[in-house]
Amino acid sequence: MILPILLIFSLLSSTSNAAVQDFCVADLASPDTPSGFACKKPAAVTVNDFVFSGLGAGGNTSNIIKAAVTPAFADKFAGVNGLGISMARLDLAVGGVIPMHTHPGGSEVLVVISGSICAGFISSSDNKVYFKSLKKGDIMVFPRGLLHFQINAGGTPALAFVSFSSERPGLQILDFALFANDLPSEIIEMTTFLDDAQVKKLKGVLGGTG
Amino acid sequence: MILPILLIFSLLSSTSNAAVQDFCVADLASPDTPSGFACKKPAAVTVNDFVFSGLGAGGNTSNIIKAAVTPAFADKFAGVNGLGISMARLDLAVGGVIPMHTHPGGSEVLVVISGSICAGFISSSDNKVYFKSLKKGDIMVFPRGLLHFQINAGGTPALAFVSFSSERPGLQILDFALFANDLPSEIIEMTTFLDDAQVKKLKGVLGGTG
Amino acid sequence: MILPILLIFSLLSSTSNAAVQDFCVADLASPDTPSGFACKKPAAVTVNDFVFSGLGAGGNTSNIIKAAVTPAFADKFAGVNGLGISMARLDLAVGGVIPMHTHPGGSEVLVVISGSICAGFISSSDNKVYFKSLKKGDIMVFPRGLLHFQINAGGTPALAFVSFSSERPGLQILDFALFANDLPSEIIEMTTFLDDAQVKKLKGVLGGTG
Amino acid sequence: MILPILLIFSLLSSTSNAAVQDFCVADLASPDTPSGFACKKPAAVTVNDFVFSGLGAGGNTSNIIKAAVTPAFADKFAGVNGLGISMARLDLAVGGVIPMHTHPGGSEVLVVISGSICAGFISSSDNKVYFKSLKKGDIMVFPRGLLHFQINAGGTPALAFVSFSSERPGLQILDFALFANDLPSEIIEMTTFLDDAQVKKLKGVLGGTG
Amino acid sequence: MILPILLIFSLLSSTSNAAVQDFCVADLASPDTPSGFACKKPAAVTVNDFVFSGLGAGGNTSNIIKAAVTPAFADKFAGVNGLGISMARLDLAVGGVIPMHTHPGGSEVLVVISGSICAGFISSSDNKVYFKSLKKGDIMVFPRGLLHFQINAGGTPALAFVSFSSERPGLQILDFALFANDLPSEIIEMTTFLDDAQVKKLKGVLGGTG
Amino acid sequence: MILPILLIFSLLSSTSNAAVQDFCVADLASPDTPSGFACKKPAAVTVNDFVFSGLGAGGNTSNIIKAAVTPAFADKFAGVNGLGISMARLDLAVGGVIPMHTHPGGSEVLVVISGSICAGFISSSDNKVYFKSLKKGDIMVFPRGLLHFQINAGGTPALAFVSFSSERPGLQILDFALFANDLPSEIIEMTTFLDDAQVKKLKGVLGGTG
Repeated sequence: MILPILLIFSLLSSTSNAAVQDFCVADLASPDTPSGFACKKPAAVTVNDFVFSGLGAGGNTSNIIKAAVTPAFADKFAGVNGLGISMARLDLAVGGVIPMHTHPGGSEVLVVISGSICAGFISSSDNKVYFKSLKKGDIMVFPRGLLHFQINAGGTPALAFVSFSSERPGLQILDFALFANDLPSEIIEMTTFLDDAQVKKLKGVLGGTG
Repeated sequence: MILPILLIFSLLSSTSNAAVQDFCVADLASPDTPSGFACKKPAAVTVNDFVFSGLGAGGNTSNIIKAAVTPAFADKFAGVNGLGISMARLDLAVGGVIPMHTHPGGSEVLVVISGSICAGFISSSDNKVYFKSLKKGDIMVFPRGLLHFQINAGGTPALAFVSFSSERPGLQILDFALFANDLPSEIIEMTTFLDDAQVKKLKGVLGGTG
Repeated sequence: MILPILLIFSLLSSTSNAAVQDFCVADLASPDTPSGFACKKPAAVTVNDFVFSGLGAGGNTSNIIKAAVTPAFADKFAGVNGLGISMARLDLAVGGVIPMHTHPGGSEVLVVISGSICAGFISSSDNKVYFKSLKKGDIMVFPRGLLHFQINAGGTPALAFVSFSSERPGLQILDFALFANDLPSEIIEMTTFLDDAQVKKLKGVLGGTG
Repeated sequence: MILPILLIFSLLSSTSNAAVQDFCVADLASPDTPSGFACKKPAAVTVNDFVFSGLGAGGNTSNIIKAAVTPAFADKFAGVNGLGISMARLDLAVGGVIPMHTHPGGSEVLVVISGSICAGFISSSDNKVYFKSLKKGDIMVFPRGLLHFQINAGGTPALAFVSFSSERPGLQILDFALFANDLPSEIIEMTTFLDDAQVKKLKGVLGGTG
Repeated sequence: MILPILLIFSLLSSTSNAAVQDFCVADLASPDTPSGFACKKPAAVTVNDFVFSGLGAGGNTSNIIKAAVTPAFADKFAGVNGLGISMARLDLAVGGVIPMHTHPGGSEVLVVISGSICAGFISSSDNKVYFKSLKKGDIMVFPRGLLHFQINAGGTPALAFVSFSSERPGLQILDFALFANDLPSEIIEMTTFLDDAQVKKLKGVLGGTG
Repeated sequence: MILPILLIFSLLSSTSNAAVQDFCVADLASPDTPSGFACKKPAAVTVNDFVFSGLGAGGNTSNIIKAAVTPAFADKFAGVNGLGISMARLDLAVGGVIPMHTHPGGSEVLVVISGSICAGFISSSDNKVYFKSLKKGDIMVFPRGLLHFQINAGGTPALAFVSFSSERPGLQILDFALFANDLPSEIIEMTTFLDDAQVKKLKGVLGGTG
């Protein structure tokens, strides 16, 4: 009885590994493309490509924002390449803040694991602010590309996991985009209406030049 | 100085609410479409549409699988409609199992919050099994449409959150698909090679007829 | 000879209007969906749905930014609904500025019709600034979701047309998102590192409260 | 043992019908949208929505092209709505021809069931023609939007089934687009370089005016 | 008159082969990506890349399921790469069965060419079974990712062609996924509720270990 | 104060260049894929990849159509690769015509910069013609894949810019597709109903053979 079954096995599975693209584990050494990294050869793929342990430990929050973001995007977590999903871990010490930022490439959902977090986003059509204090177990969605923020709203450290509708959602932090590069202060001031002193102060803090 | 600014405000914002589709909160009373539910009127949208508290409490695990899945898909969590992302909560008591299942419409990432979970999926091309025991903080991705499972791998209850690359990923549990409906036993047996006694036993347990 | 041809005409065209979705002109009175507005009945569609004359005249630049944006998104230009493209007109008087902004839903290409424009965007990965002075006939692309700006770089008025890879790309102007709503100053300050005086000054100018 | 199982059944299936969008059977009486027709209520869906018998009989080939196209697009075959696939049947009597045409919305694969068919398409980049005589069992793909044709290449009637990568691929037959409407002859001649006599002759045959 | 035309020819066709991506014939020797295989150089493409004759002959049905599936996915039929469509041939001898399976990556339409076939699928939301006996010329659609099957319903061999809304839809046959690999029996039993004897019997037949 | 900030800078930006795919500038020397060209290494990207000056000068209209199309698709304008947008410049001398054509891969919007243009397209469902005379500043949209044309409608040269919802929309000019290659005249005549003399005349003009 085994032989005939093996026969259909080979027939039905003439669908080779190449034909079925269940997944495309990122091969970071290969060319990048608009749809993601080229795929690792199927024979080289193991379960460890689909598991990532880098979010197990809290990020270092001994910094001025008292917070840390630890991403598991496709360059770190090769198994999500091409699958349209990824994660990150947020640690907020007491007083911690994830500053105003956007993800140009995807929407985000956040789940509070411990502590409480005040989170919000701003719509583009009418500049309306949607924000709320979230407690343990609450989830919140931040639509793609909109400015948003998270603040520790309690007296204890807060932990959250966030997921994205893209394996490479991007992260544009407003202050870094404006003040941590060589964008001339004159241009910043013209395009943001910020005062020269304010711009120069933040450039000083964030290492910007120009 | 205020007046002229307000002028450009109105000009620049002539982009009305209708033109900018930052989000499309599901209006469950409106027609469903291939791209999701029709949108709630913008004026009726509040921050509560983007926040969901239903995952805060554990599901009831006093059942035969000693586990519970609590979803936050677009019909429960209206804010994710059209955004390509959603979540669910998994509770696994000691000995708990999320049975073999697929999500026809999306990939999944799982993060272990407490306890340990043995999770795995089976590829379609070569029937290879990828499974591993995950500890707290580990994340694992399950590619779209593939059979997968989660089992409490420790001596304590386990908790995980899962996210999907779709706001309505679907959930097809193998045993319910086969044994909890009126699919004639003869067809089940022909298409699964299962023995008649096995099929009838599980139909009995799961309430299937035919 | 005419009769038989008409016969195949009817046969080949048994593909009714409903089956072929060449276009879906927006019916603004119908429900909005994640994929766009519901479609006008085919019989009601005319060539005027596909033509828009509202970009023919310059916007009013007698305002503090000495500039105007006139959009032709799906709510104004119903014919682009569902087609993944739209346009807008930029008028920049001498000294005019389109302030720092993003389009959450699409990439943009700009073509300079007259005058010269200094335009730039900031990447999210390394906060690198890409900016250049553009002359008449130059085109520049601004990738989806990234902060960008346009400044009149010459001594004469400048005119540009911009196109988007979405019929509803959105427009989030940084200053309006931060200072033209009721987002509490304390939150703005925590999430942007801006000084309280700066925040209050701009709220005053832009009509923000809180 | 049955009771507890039913308990998890209800828990796991708290994923309601609305949340899982396995399919969206077209409700032709509801609004059309860019992503397809609105969905029939799940309770009204039956297996007959997913089965179509209209391709069982050959189309009438007693016409000048000695051929017939019988489509099963979403307006006829409601079950494919939103699923990105559809079919049609081609009947070619001896000497039959499916004239030069495009499908604006999708790629096509053709399988020859009986007879032989000469089929081809023209690439847009270099106007290169790809054509071949196909025998029973051969399949050929026609990339999206490109001009293509099918001709009975043998001495017996030919039958083929074609599938499309869209549930509403459209069908633009060149001669009908040019000569079966009120497009002024002068414009046709300017934009096609065809002679006035040729244009008027074909308008006469196909019922065009202007 | 020829020279000026050639001039515009070169102008209009300054759109080089590289710019117009009518198709992307799979180059199996190049890297695979999330969007499909890298493309063959345009100069190497011939009409034979778009035609496949491998479905002309019936598969071998001298096996336990008395059936054969012969796919024409992108690894065999290079021309469909990137076009979102592919085909396969189903041969069912008398008593033949295509066992319960899913296609993780696409929806399917089936057309019966000869014989009769009982086909069905199971929805994920409510485990409802949709099945029907199909006769010659009938078509049926199977939505993406759902469990489905086909059984010869008559006294003669049956032939069907199936098309997919993906050039690499995948094929996950339930029995092979469960019993033809090294997934430990204990895990299978916990996640499917099948009896140990049943699992071991089918592992024996299908060559599974563990 | 700088040190701690730099610390979070490195933490938050652990999102490396590879993880954030803001853009994917085309590397024409690398393999092409269904989603576009492989990406240039981020370190090699400059602002000049996002700016294109090739549309600044008018195309040569000293030809039989008295018109010129100058494209800025991804092979010329590397920065648009993967971004779903591109542009072209249309120059129409007095009496100039852009002949009947389609873009298989995208929709188009046209803005008239000077002169007046009679533009139109033909729907596929009912062969209805939508055409209108456009004046300076008017914009018009041409849905994906449909036959369309542009004619100088005035007594002065006309200039327009067109944008596409694809970085490689393709351009299939009807006359070149039919008469500028080796498609046998017999096939052309069978599939278009054109007279033999007409076909041979245009083949003579456009350099076709066969």
